[in-house]
Amino acid sequence: MADATTRVNLDTEDLKLIDRYWRAANYLSVGQIYLLDNPLLSDALKPEHIKPRLLGHWGTTPGLNFIYAHLNRVIKSRDLNMIFICGPGHGGPGMVANTWLEGTYSEIYPDISFDGEGMKKLFRQFSFPGGIPSHAAPETPGSIHEGGELGYSLVHAYGAAFDNPDLIVSCVIGDGEAETGPLAASWHGNKFLNPQRDGAVLPILHLNGYKIANPTLLGRSSDSDLQQLFSGYGYLPIFVVGSDPMDMHQQMAAAIDHALDIIKDIQRQARTGQAPTGMAAAVPHWPLIILRSPKGWTGPKEVDGKKTEGFWRAHQVPVANCRNDDGHREILQSWLQSYHPQDLFDNKGRLKPELMALAPHGERRMGANPHANGGKLRIALKTPDIGDYALEFAQPGAIQAGATEVLAAYLRDVMHINDIDSNFRLFGPDETASNRLSKVFEATQRMTMQRIESYDESLSADGRVLEVLSEHLCQGWLEGYLLTGRHGLFTCYEAFIHIIDSMFNQHAKWLKVSRKLPWRAPVSSLNYLLSSHVWRQDHNGYSHQDPGFMDVVANKKAEIVRIYLPPDANTLLWVTDHCLQTYDRINVIIAGKQPEPQWLSMEEAKKHCQVGLGIWPWAGTETGETEPDVVMACAGDVPTLETLAAVSILRQYLPQLVIRVINVVDLFALQSAEQHPHGHSDAFFDQLFTRDKPVIFAYHGYPTLIHRLTYKRTNHQQIHVHGFNEEGTTTTPFDMTVLNQLDRFHLAIAAIRHVPGLEDKAAEALQFCHKKLEQHYDYVREYGEDLPEIQNWQWKIN
Amino acid sequence: MADATTRVNLDTEDLKLIDRYWRAANYLSVGQIYLLDNPLLSDALKPEHIKPRLLGHWGTTPGLNFIYAHLNRVIKSRDLNMIFICGPGHGGPGMVANTWLEGTYSEIYPDISFDGEGMKKLFRQFSFPGGIPSHAAPETPGSIHEGGELGYSLVHAYGAAFDNPDLIVSCVIGDGEAETGPLAASWHGNKFLNPQRDGAVLPILHLNGYKIANPTLLGRSSDSDLQQLFSGYGYLPIFVVGSDPMDMHQQMAAAIDHALDIIKDIQRQARTGQAPTGMAAAVPHWPLIILRSPKGWTGPKEVDGKKTEGFWRAHQVPVANCRNDDGHREILQSWLQSYHPQDLFDNKGRLKPELMALAPHGERRMGANPHANGGKLRIALKTPDIGDYALEFAQPGAIQAGATEVLAAYLRDVMHINDIDSNFRLFGPDETASNRLSKVFEATQRMTMQRIESYDESLSADGRVLEVLSEHLCQGWLEGYLLTGRHGLFTCYEAFIHIIDSMFNQHAKWLKVSRKLPWRAPVSSLNYLLSSHVWRQDHNGYSHQDPGFMDVVANKKAEIVRIYLPPDANTLLWVTDHCLQTYDRINVIIAGKQPEPQWLSMEEAKKHCQVGLGIWPWAGTETGETEPDVVMACAGDVPTLETLAAVSILRQYLPQLVIRVINVVDLFALQSAEQHPHGHSDAFFDQLFTRDKPVIFAYHGYPTLIHRLTYKRTNHQQIHVHGFNEEGTTTTPFDMTVLNQLDRFHLAIAAIRHVPGLEDKAAEALQFCHKKLEQHYDYVREYGEDLPEIQNWQWKIN
Repeated sequence: MADATTRVNLDTEDLKLIDRYWRAANYLSVGQIYLLDNPLLSDALKPEHIKPRLLGHWGTTPGLNFIYAHLNRVIKSRDLNMIFICGPGHGGPGMVANTWLEGTYSEIYPDISFDGEGMKKLFRQFSFPGGIPSHAAPETPGSIHEGGELGYSLVHAYGAAFDNPDLIVSCVIGDGEAETGPLAASWHGNKFLNPQRDGAVLPILHLNGYKIANPTLLGRSSDSDLQQLFSGYGYLPIFVVGSDPMDMHQQMAAAIDHALDIIKDIQRQARTGQAPTGMAAAVPHWPLIILRSPKGWTGPKEVDGKKTEGFWRAHQVPVANCRNDDGHREILQSWLQSYHPQDLFDNKGRLKPELMALAPHGERRMGANPHANGGKLRIALKTPDIGDYALEFAQPGAIQAGATEVLAAYLRDVMHINDIDSNFRLFGPDETASNRLSKVFEATQRMTMQRIESYDESLSADGRVLEVLSEHLCQGWLEGYLLTGRHGLFTCYEAFIHIIDSMFNQHAKWLKVSRKLPWRAPVSSLNYLLSSHVWRQDHNGYSHQDPGFMDVVANKKAEIVRIYLPPDANTLLWVTDHCLQTYDRINVIIAGKQPEPQWLSMEEAKKHCQVGLGIWPWAGTETGETEPDVVMACAGDVPTLETLAAVSILRQYLPQLVIRVINVVDLFALQSAEQHPHGHSDAFFDQLFTRDKPVIFAYHGYPTLIHRLTYKRTNHQQIHVHGFNEEGTTTTPFDMTVLNQLDRFHLAIAAIRHVPGLEDKAAEALQFCHKKLEQHYDYVREYGEDLPEIQNWQWKIN
Repeated sequence: MADATTRVNLDTEDLKLIDRYWRAANYLSVGQIYLLDNPLLSDALKPEHIKPRLLGHWGTTPGLNFIYAHLNRVIKSRDLNMIFICGPGHGGPGMVANTWLEGTYSEIYPDISFDGEGMKKLFRQFSFPGGIPSHAAPETPGSIHEGGELGYSLVHAYGAAFDNPDLIVSCVIGDGEAETGPLAASWHGNKFLNPQRDGAVLPILHLNGYKIANPTLLGRSSDSDLQQLFSGYGYLPIFVVGSDPMDMHQQMAAAIDHALDIIKDIQRQARTGQAPTGMAAAVPHWPLIILRSPKGWTGPKEVDGKKTEGFWRAHQVPVANCRNDDGHREILQSWLQSYHPQDLFDNKGRLKPELMALAPHGERRMGANPHANGGKLRIALKTPDIGDYALEFAQPGAIQAGATEVLAAYLRDVMHINDIDSNFRLFGPDETASNRLSKVFEATQRMTMQRIESYDESLSADGRVLEVLSEHLCQGWLEGYLLTGRHGLFTCYEAFIHIIDSMFNQHAKWLKVSRKLPWRAPVSSLNYLLSSHVWRQDHNGYSHQDPGFMDVVANKKAEIVRIYLPPDANTLLWVTDHCLQTYDRINVIIAGKQPEPQWLSMEEAKKHCQVGLGIWPWAGTETGETEPDVVMACAGDVPTLETLAAVSILRQYLPQLVIRVINVVDLFALQSAEQHPHGHSDAFFDQLFTRDKPVIFAYHGYPTLIHRLTYKRTNHQQIHVHGFNEEGTTTTPFDMTVLNQLDRFHLAIAAIRHVPGLEDKAAEALQFCHKKLEQHYDYVREYGEDLPEIQNWQWKIN
């Protein structure tokens, strides 16, 4: 076991200074939770000095302050480029306190000045209406991690460290957070961090023993169990254990120095050719600090006769009734006095100069490090001309191609031309090849620091494709990578993107707030490519069939979210190229990987995608003289194929029927401009979808989303949506559409039924459709594959 | 390191028999993936014997078959009560093969007889339209785990083992699955398993080295790293490593015997008083088998010159073109022949008697064990009379109470009266107390097997409340507990239930299929109690504010999902009591924990909840002569409060206005009876909501869900929904409603605006509302809490 206590390197004076700095942060943290006024305790505390509602989390905060003070020391002594990720994000008071102490806070928010007046406002604004939130939110300087939903600190830290060779990402992980699944998997990030080209992550597991009302699993584990657990993950644990401040300062200083020495060694070896390059041999044993300190450290030991410090009662507000209960207020007064504010601040509330001298300067301050405001460092992604990858064909439907395979060549070249900036990566749960994107392996490989066998393929320690069977890690790494100013794409099976619904929510919330903060520079959009989608998971079955992520996405703010359903390769190229160049958004692209008919030339694709939806005149039968009898609308590659096949049935059997075909590539183009920036006016919508004609809408997902997007439109009552009705199993691709009545025959039947008076004239067409459905049913059950005429169907204008 | 190879206990004859049994299972697995006909290879394979589409996953299957055969051996030799959880659920062919070999399959599906004719059908039906899915689906006997979405095997295993002292849950965890977050956290299940009263989990980590197209992290970790990692988690790892079948059989037999000896020892010590009772001292070191065997073991070594066995190419269908490529077909033929089918089956395709003798009998067969068809063992939950917990009060709004606190007394007694059956548990991420359910601790405690300190509260090794800061573990344990025939409730913060969206989806899919299988007995519903909801997370801020789970739930099949929004304590009692007694459903209950006005007596609550929605005549101003001018509808506790407060403003300022108040407690009661079993006819809906009067609908969640549920109703265009518009931060409770225009003043203003001609007559009311909004704005920013008149508001009929 690495024993940090053997390395003492702070003299008494340094120890005292760092302890005073820590006390200052603790004082400011308690002040934020409790005080409306009297910030320097110039008078005895009176009821009116106390906030009427006491909000905030004390328990984790002194530990965070302790760590922050010690990191400041080494940033200065070693001139480090370091950011701070606060896993227990509810320890917001600590983050605010520290960035105020180092001067960053007042620079960003000049109204919160660096003196007693500012301190009063700092206290007041915390968790206060019109003020700042209680967590390490986007408003908090130096934060790229809100931390409200626990579990993602370490994965964010790794994402931030990738391709940032000079950066050290310190990352505090709470012991509550450490119980979550995503955090438990995040430790494996060390297998994806290359010390040659990436920065370092310094995890600090903070065991204060309790969650809200319970001991923690790791807090109650023995040191030897923890030693084994983290050694098994590949780390070198360094323990810091105790509660006596002076002893703990000494231990912590030694531990951090020890850890940084190891980091330096690992990097030096890797970067001076002393470690194998290209082919990884072993995962370096990066250091990990395990800090055991009391919950609510330095707070009241007891309140109302009940154990508080070192117990879960210290989690939020340890002494609750300070406004109305004199005894409670006295506890608070002594607690605040115990930090000796007069020893920390002058009588104007300014931090004493010898303490100010402890904070790093300029961009070395963790609150001011540009990596934590990544947009500032963002270099625009270079993209090649999509025309170079465009499919060319004589007429719509003339050729078949797999859309993602076409896109792969484009992505390969994006990888190539941004190689010099090392700022683009692909992330995915072992599905890059499965999603037919293998061409990117011509430009780079999959990444691993583990052993590589001679027969392994596309695998290297230099790879820029990160594959791990954890959607949580893919999402979290990408978030960390984007928030530190880089670009990326997450490819995933559509059904399993639900695994990160909640991470998506949190990132959308982050963006909603951060984009309104003028000092936060825009970051690149988070881009999803969902392939192996619901209609083409016929081979894996029902568990793999779920298009509901779109519904989750559509709940978030319109200025942030986009959903694209490109029907073919050229539209997929345009959409992806567009998304990769946007910022402060979340773009969801859903596209097939199977060979499918190609519809639009690149010129047509551009025009179509720019508007977001439009009539495909070559597919319909309008002559321009009258309104159509029926609108056949579609969104998604399979729905588009089935719609065109339905149209060709209708054209054949009912040549007099005036059909309009509309394809929707940008889902929010269905909304109004008031609802979504990509929306269109009612007049435009009415022009397209008519005011009263039946619309048969074939849609990729759950039908209700189309209703939800269009329910305010004039013709809404006439929009009949066919989509995924939660019917699935292992079967054939076409049978999947039949099970959900999204197939060409059901679409044609629906058109016939909904056009007034048509049913009587369409006996032959209806008979044809019903016969074909029967044939299909019999054939797939006999041969286990779709009818050849379905498999080989081609769009032909009759 | 535990060395299993030192314990040899199978003689040559036994070895050969077990190897033959394994070969039989492998043969049947390959046959399912490839063959349409010629199941016994009576002829040379011809193209027409091969399925046109080859679907299925070979890679993991031989390992699963190997494990299954060895478990059969010990079930027989030790008369064990054991079920099998197949983490790599895509190894479905293996599960089907084994349950056919042991006879279960033909008993459940008599058409798939236990002979050559049955074997042919068995092969044909696999991954075939009209047949069975490719995964270990509900259709698979012995399965409680589909396994399509990886990560939940071990948490299901623990859930199944709780309160089943005689059961051993063997659980195969794939090395791909082991990379997921939920699985990484699941290892901590050992801290919640009490050997006195619970069964055992035998995890078998199957490292076959590769995922779809990549090495696995744990597969590439050294034995010593794994030894440390799992020792750190608290397990005793036993390694079985190699590829030579005979050697591996010997190792595996020894390893399993060793593991079972340890399990027996742990249980004996715990159950004979040799281990501390009540107060836990230490987590027992349960055994864990780590099996390293080649991916696609015994399959083709190479195909087209490319490494296949022991590589990721063996993941799905290792030799792909057997119908059209003679060479491929020859590989298949030799592969199948390598198992020597004539040595396994007689010429009628019946398993040879000496092999049949290897399978356990009756319910000892893992495919027939009733724990894997838990409804068979389900004892109905006893519930007390909810009347005993009812709040009584003189008139609506007369008293305040916290709904969850009232419910807690009921839950405490449910705990009590079912204690004898040991079949009810509460699950939650450390939020039982936070959600004001502490009264249950009068009947039981939180559970831990870790050290308990003298000052810990409500903590014991006997506790029936499972708290861990992982929504994944809570959900997974409860699923495992329910699927083995027990009952439970998962309490969670509303925002963070999104963390398990995807697990919810998979469980809903399981239920959709299982409830249609006559041989599967119904299991208890999965019940959620979501408290600390969006409107009362003002103190934690934006990351904690998200009501979107309802939208995910509403996508699933109507026969399975229910959403309840009880507005007060008595309705919460009725709804919870109802939900706990249902089966094969997923019930979502959203209720507040803060003190709130109480509206309905228990009698009224019963009637109201049974219909699902209804008019609150005491709240409106109807006299019965005419239709109302406006309908004020509400769903959710806070929206109900704000609606009634809005109504009292309207009543005061516009006494002539005819107002109807409708409360919706069962969200799907808004739909039609065709859409949902709880739905109501259009006539009934029109009667309630009128055909053309404005409806101001105050709703708990995102407004679109109400539109989605009602868009087919006559009056839909007049339904104006106020709900969560994704506006949030740390602020006061009432300010949260104002930010989203769900507050009383905005609701009153909306009513005035939407009643034709009213605006002109309502200047005073409008002025009042605007003034109050301004006052609110100023007051919260000055004092940080809501106006006293808002905090103390009471419903009074003027």
